[in-house]
Amino acid sequence: MQLASNLLENAVNEFAKLPGIGKKTALRLVLHLLKQDTAEVSHFGETITKMRTDIQFCNRCGNVSDAAICTICANPLRNQRLICVVENIRDVIAIENTQQFSGTYHVLGGIISPLDGVGPEQLNIESLTNRIQTEETEELIFALNPNIQGDTTIYYIQKKIQQLPCKITTIARGIAFGGELEYADELTLARSLTNRLPVGSYISNR
Amino acid sequence: MQLASNLLENAVNEFAKLPGIGKKTALRLVLHLLKQDTAEVSHFGETITKMRTDIQFCNRCGNVSDAAICTICANPLRNQRLICVVENIRDVIAIENTQQFSGTYHVLGGIISPLDGVGPEQLNIESLTNRIQTEETEELIFALNPNIQGDTTIYYIQKKIQQLPCKITTIARGIAFGGELEYADELTLARSLTNRLPVGSYISNR
Repeated sequence: MQLASNLLENAVNEFAKLPGIGKKTALRLVLHLLKQDTAEVSHFGETITKMRTDIQFCNRCGNVSDAAICTICANPLRNQRLICVVENIRDVIAIENTQQFSGTYHVLGGIISPLDGVGPEQLNIESLTNRIQTEETEELIFALNPNIQGDTTIYYIQKKIQQLPCKITTIARGIAFGGELEYADELTLARSLTNRLPVGSYISNR
Repeated sequence: MQLASNLLENAVNEFAKLPGIGKKTALRLVLHLLKQDTAEVSHFGETITKMRTDIQFCNRCGNVSDAAICTICANPLRNQRLICVVENIRDVIAIENTQQFSGTYHVLGGIISPLDGVGPEQLNIESLTNRIQTEETEELIFALNPNIQGDTTIYYIQKKIQQLPCKITTIARGIAFGGELEYADELTLARSLTNRLPVGSYISNR
């Protein structure tokens, strides 16, 4: 694509670096911004820059935060002895959106994946075991993606804290609501049979 | 969507203002930027802001430009007596990408559309007629979208410059390459019959 202005071209290239945004979409976004007030576009640029510069990560759980401790950890109404272990911030947002969880989180910042060169020492596992010891945690819920890496991570952490008096659970895996049995993969279907639930508990938890 | 950080939320809201970007996509983009270096994200913000602040519009043709005269108007290799009239900058880019046009452009900045409250006085028509008079333009090619507003705009400008010794043409309208006759609308098909071309000219221009 040939543009008459280097300024325009630079802006298009910056947008095109974002995931899922190609040159054509980038151009559309930049031409949209070109039609806006200078003040508005400056505000856009500053907000993005400020977000990256000023954002902090909660000292306790590793979630994004505007202060040293995030709003979830600082909330006295939440059960501080219940920790939900997640891979990243996106998972915290997904679980918060259900409005069904009233405990706290612990963001690992990834999962153990030797093929990608991610070992336990690169994740926030040390801080998790410290938390469990000092905070007298009652239950640890693993909410990791159901794959080999997720299972490896669960296994590793479980081994590390097996001496501690803390209940360890994982989110249920099975057929999703609205899913169809005939299209479910064999592993999921087999596991959902093995981990079958009493009908009463299923209906009351719905 | 509930986010633990106002900084994050502000950034998501800014991205979500862009056309075609919803809250979920905005969040994905912001979380991507969060993983980048601070310097890189600052560069992103500054490039966008600088683009809007420093960009100019060519005094002659109205195209975007880094200087008072754009690179197309300043290029001595281009035919300065041939003007292609387009609605906006996006059309200039589309025609430049064909690499088939060696004249100059004139960006109207819109088309006459009384329903949207756009009259001729809001468009760069005055500057176009001045250009034709002072630059001894040989040909004016209208490359406007084929609709009522486009036709109205062509008619208005044509009336205004009919005393001037300047050839006036419009880009061909007809069945697009790769299009199928049976799916073409009636108006296009009827016009393409009326404005049929000798077979030789069609093949040589291909």
